[in-house]
Amino acid sequence: MALMDQVTSFDKVSGVLVCQSGCILESLNQYLESRGYIMPLDLGAKGSCHIGGNLATNAGGLRLLRYGSLRGTVLGLEVVLPDGSIMDCLSSLRKDNTGYDLKQLFIGSEGTLGIITAVSIICPRKPSAVNVALLGCEDFTRVLQVFTLCRDHLGEILSAYEFMDSESMRVVQTHLKLNNPLQDNAFYVLIETSGSNASHDEDKLTAFLSNALDSGLVTEGTVATDQSKIKSLWALRERITEALSHDGYVYKYDLSMPVEKIYDLVEETRARLGTSAQRVVGYGHLGDGNVHLNVTAERHSDSLLAAIEPFVYEWTAQHRGSISAEHGLGFKKRDHIHYSKSKEAVQLMQRIKHMLDPKGIMNPYKTIPCAD
Amino acid sequence: MALMDQVTSFDKVSGVLVCQSGCILESLNQYLESRGYIMPLDLGAKGSCHIGGNLATNAGGLRLLRYGSLRGTVLGLEVVLPDGSIMDCLSSLRKDNTGYDLKQLFIGSEGTLGIITAVSIICPRKPSAVNVALLGCEDFTRVLQVFTLCRDHLGEILSAYEFMDSESMRVVQTHLKLNNPLQDNAFYVLIETSGSNASHDEDKLTAFLSNALDSGLVTEGTVATDQSKIKSLWALRERITEALSHDGYVYKYDLSMPVEKIYDLVEETRARLGTSAQRVVGYGHLGDGNVHLNVTAERHSDSLLAAIEPFVYEWTAQHRGSISAEHGLGFKKRDHIHYSKSKEAVQLMQRIKHMLDPKGIMNPYKTIPCAD
Repeated sequence: MALMDQVTSFDKVSGVLVCQSGCILESLNQYLESRGYIMPLDLGAKGSCHIGGNLATNAGGLRLLRYGSLRGTVLGLEVVLPDGSIMDCLSSLRKDNTGYDLKQLFIGSEGTLGIITAVSIICPRKPSAVNVALLGCEDFTRVLQVFTLCRDHLGEILSAYEFMDSESMRVVQTHLKLNNPLQDNAFYVLIETSGSNASHDEDKLTAFLSNALDSGLVTEGTVATDQSKIKSLWALRERITEALSHDGYVYKYDLSMPVEKIYDLVEETRARLGTSAQRVVGYGHLGDGNVHLNVTAERHSDSLLAAIEPFVYEWTAQHRGSISAEHGLGFKKRDHIHYSKSKEAVQLMQRIKHMLDPKGIMNPYKTIPCAD
Repeated sequence: MALMDQVTSFDKVSGVLVCQSGCILESLNQYLESRGYIMPLDLGAKGSCHIGGNLATNAGGLRLLRYGSLRGTVLGLEVVLPDGSIMDCLSSLRKDNTGYDLKQLFIGSEGTLGIITAVSIICPRKPSAVNVALLGCEDFTRVLQVFTLCRDHLGEILSAYEFMDSESMRVVQTHLKLNNPLQDNAFYVLIETSGSNASHDEDKLTAFLSNALDSGLVTEGTVATDQSKIKSLWALRERITEALSHDGYVYKYDLSMPVEKIYDLVEETRARLGTSAQRVVGYGHLGDGNVHLNVTAERHSDSLLAAIEPFVYEWTAQHRGSISAEHGLGFKKRDHIHYSKSKEAVQLMQRIKHMLDPKGIMNPYKTIPCAD
């Protein structure tokens, strides 16, 4: 879709952007920033990913906590169906209750029902003040308590609450030579605020931080308000994936579950694998109940894989979690769908797939298992 | 569903509520308020409407501007399908990309694909500070300009931007004896802020108001911070529908379109109908591009109806608007769906309906026109 990279229209009053699906996320964000708006999603791969792909995979990313899911912010789609017809649902309306919301079928269906060719999306105003804080915590219980405290104090300006464990910090220090501005801590929390009034936001952040430090929930912290320091703090979190690849082979899991269970899984996996894994790290979007569990080893090994799977999937299913929070199922995980979805649900998905794509020509072998 | 009115669980950390579909919206909100949260939607009918019905009709209402659409806030559903099987998609996860998002099929499908029996929804924190302002404007252009100014100043704390015309104000004064605290104005704007810090919010609101008054965008205004005055200002807007019914018969239209066109339609309708209508009023959720155009007469008349329809639908279609922004199509409007949806889209809806409900037993004759 790379050649379909044009912005069709942008309405400065409503913030509605209409564009072709091959536009690159970062380019769209730059286009909007110069007009006082931003995209409602942001992710590490922004420099190369297409907005059409973001929608087809229902990308979550770093701003979901604040601006919500694409299912709420996408207003319309144009889609080419498997029979070659063009489905024009490219509405720019914030509200429209005339019949079924067909565009939802194509968001997150990974290209298995049609090809998204154009997008209409509502964009938030560019915040005039952004602050980032990196905090150290002694244990995961405190990470959760800081989250509650943080929502009390920062309320409507909280735009990210990310966490990483000490092993995640070590990997970006070791392989990318990034600087950790804090001492060694068991856990790190990255908090971002985005608001319309810098001094109000600073007041709120200061009150939160002094409370967090006084109560012993946080051992130490650093705050960034200028763009370059903000970037370097974010890099510690955003570049973990890249750093892990220097270890060798990476087994990646993208899970969501009740937030208080998130780190138990990481610890149990670490204990289970012992020295057969080089590294077991846990980090992610705590505000969304989403953990990225990654295991590294020098090279791929079937026996290590057998120690991880189905253990991780079964553990997740037992806690009614999702075995793919934001990455989708693709080719590798489509036959694992039953860990997160009931038989009835999978059958209905198969019927929808068969109805729209009876010949199975759209992104074959992906997402939905073959009907028995 | 009235007997299925139990709350199943509420998680105080994540704000996720799970309940049966017969719970009354206002009762849920009270349940949550005592726990420091609120429902992400609010509407005039809150005292009697069921959450299941809110979802089946994809209700919009007064908080959509701030908390977004139910398509983003609903995390899971349990649905009884037309074949009697139970579809358990009652996930409480904020993120889950394992296969198609089946729950979206049932949100807004007006009971034509299945009966919603249980709901999982993510709820925002209860704002600790709420302010309401009622402002008067000379013309609709200023109403739009105030919206832009308001978003600049109030940013993340803006939770409602409603408008009503002078005729709407007159009807609540005449029939309900409500008190208009301002002089006569051509238009009124009701602004609500919800935030976590009262003094910050007051600062923002004061700066906005002095700017709006100094620049002549607003002729006068009044601000409420205490609960009883807030309620009485909201009543002016929320009770318009009730007041209109005292006029006699009411022709109701719930339209969305590009925001700058919204009032042109009201004016053209008023000019077109002349003295054959008793009253033509326009009010609604300006922040969402949603106008409620209502025409009253002493009694129903076919000739008046013929003067309104299809004029209103054609006008809306010409501006790529929706002939039902938040009320749904139901029985009366199902054959008007083509004003807002393409032939291909309607055909796909019919195929989905036929696939799930081949005997047409779920809420028959509603929403989706019969296949040719």
